[in-house]
Amino acid sequence: MTRRIKVGGAQMGPITKADGKPAIVARLVALLRQAGERGCELVVFPELTLSTFFPRWYAPERDGMDHYFDRAMPGPETQLLFDEAKRLGIGFCLGYAELVEEEGRLRRFNTSILVDRAGALVGKYRKIHLPGHAEYEPQRSHQHLEKRYFEVGNTGFQVWEAFGGTVGMAICNDRRWVETYRVMGLQNVELIMIGYNTPVSDSLSGETETLRMFHNHLTMQAGAYQNSTWVVGVAKAGVEDGHRLMGGSVIVAPTGEIVAAAETEGDELIVADCDLDRCEYYKSHIFNFAAHRRPEFYGRITAQKGVAKGPRST
Amino acid sequence: MTRRIKVGGAQMGPITKADGKPAIVARLVALLRQAGERGCELVVFPELTLSTFFPRWYAPERDGMDHYFDRAMPGPETQLLFDEAKRLGIGFCLGYAELVEEEGRLRRFNTSILVDRAGALVGKYRKIHLPGHAEYEPQRSHQHLEKRYFEVGNTGFQVWEAFGGTVGMAICNDRRWVETYRVMGLQNVELIMIGYNTPVSDSLSGETETLRMFHNHLTMQAGAYQNSTWVVGVAKAGVEDGHRLMGGSVIVAPTGEIVAAAETEGDELIVADCDLDRCEYYKSHIFNFAAHRRPEFYGRITAQKGVAKGPRST
Repeated sequence: MTRRIKVGGAQMGPITKADGKPAIVARLVALLRQAGERGCELVVFPELTLSTFFPRWYAPERDGMDHYFDRAMPGPETQLLFDEAKRLGIGFCLGYAELVEEEGRLRRFNTSILVDRAGALVGKYRKIHLPGHAEYEPQRSHQHLEKRYFEVGNTGFQVWEAFGGTVGMAICNDRRWVETYRVMGLQNVELIMIGYNTPVSDSLSGETETLRMFHNHLTMQAGAYQNSTWVVGVAKAGVEDGHRLMGGSVIVAPTGEIVAAAETEGDELIVADCDLDRCEYYKSHIFNFAAHRRPEFYGRITAQKGVAKGPRST
Repeated sequence: MTRRIKVGGAQMGPITKADGKPAIVARLVALLRQAGERGCELVVFPELTLSTFFPRWYAPERDGMDHYFDRAMPGPETQLLFDEAKRLGIGFCLGYAELVEEEGRLRRFNTSILVDRAGALVGKYRKIHLPGHAEYEPQRSHQHLEKRYFEVGNTGFQVWEAFGGTVGMAICNDRRWVETYRVMGLQNVELIMIGYNTPVSDSLSGETETLRMFHNHLTMQAGAYQNSTWVVGVAKAGVEDGHRLMGGSVIVAPTGEIVAAAETEGDELIVADCDLDRCEYYKSHIFNFAAHRRPEFYGRITAQKGVAKGPRST
């Protein structure tokens, strides 16, 4: 039985405030068809694929961005995407803003879903590491209000048996956090799908665009190597209403090496033939967790949230 | 008050079985003097600085390498190094094989000590992530018997207030493990000193030398960036009795960027002027742990050692 899976990373170019969902879905369908022509079995779309990156805008009310959220997936405007994927026999990972009634109230999450080649929902992930801030900050050239419009996800970092292997999802800022990869690594993950929207500039730091792209790749490459897993990182890129997002979509092998990379900041499909068995060598040797990890010395990682000095037994 | 510290990474060329300790110490002293001329306040030496990398050789008895171990630090042959460092006003981090009577028995650790500019011992670290194996494995071109000759360290990943900042130590294989950096990051570490001995080839994997060097740097650069800390990684390098160790000593800024790098596989000093205040930006923004971490979803990291699938509440 083969454990190779041909994966497409469907980078999206910019989506402006003015773009309507039918036009956006038509672009997704076009990328799916390209993926079909290239033999992909699984396509990864970015974070918040169905709208502009609205957390850069301030709304006085927390529900002020609800028009960008989806209540049903598929819904009337996204059904076409699901139908086309099923027709092509392609599974996909799709990020969107999720509005849901749970625990007797409306809740908002930054969500990704995974759909199999037959069109069935495999799993859902709700973003845990929300970056940015919750209130308007006038010193910024653009806002980053994810903590305003979303709740922290409540799904944890799960993995699923799908596409012939063990797969997981993360979203954007999650990729910078070692715990994201490790929690899935401890469940034997072999392929992690990550969509992102990342501005090319940080209005507070003065970091160069080059440095920020280095960080984008550094964290995904280290996460892949240190957990012996494929990582598919897919951007929404380009200039959205004057605000530019980085591209740099990549597929990273379990060696940490980039094996496919986007060249543009537009709609662009990158493809790699991912042999899930390549995860096995590191998982059983240098990163054989059972042989080498020492959780008795890791206590602070779960016992404390922020920095805390002073003696601790573990 | 300045928070800049000029740090030297004192890469060592090969040490063969035949080399005596006086000759080795003379090389360390020469590197210290170079560091003094270049204005260094702190010098980092490699792992197991005082001997060849003996875990590549099999001995039938576990005490068969005891002649490479030091019982006292400083001892008769290393006193010269301590004296010279004090005279120059240079602190240092030194790796060595430690033989100690504790708990009523002889114990062996792969150890680093940190000595301040006045010659006083600041702290001791005993290596936690021992790589390799404990028994002879005939399929290997060279052995990696750290699990045979050393016990797992019992110090934990501590940090110390020294050299104007918060500093910590790790050794060799520790640098590949995200938990190493994170446990110190959670104590506000600003500079981590790491010595290593790493073969250029792995007799089982067929990895290229280039890939292995990439992993060496990838893990330290990611560890630095993701924890907003300087990392000083220092090799023992070159051909020891026919077995070649990689060089690639580097000083990594809190941005993850390499700011100094060795060019040779011999005795070589690399120097960087490390501004500890550069840690502050990331620590208070993108990697503000208190604002962004979510330990309620990290449970597996401390609750399990090896891979375990299946549902888990956190």
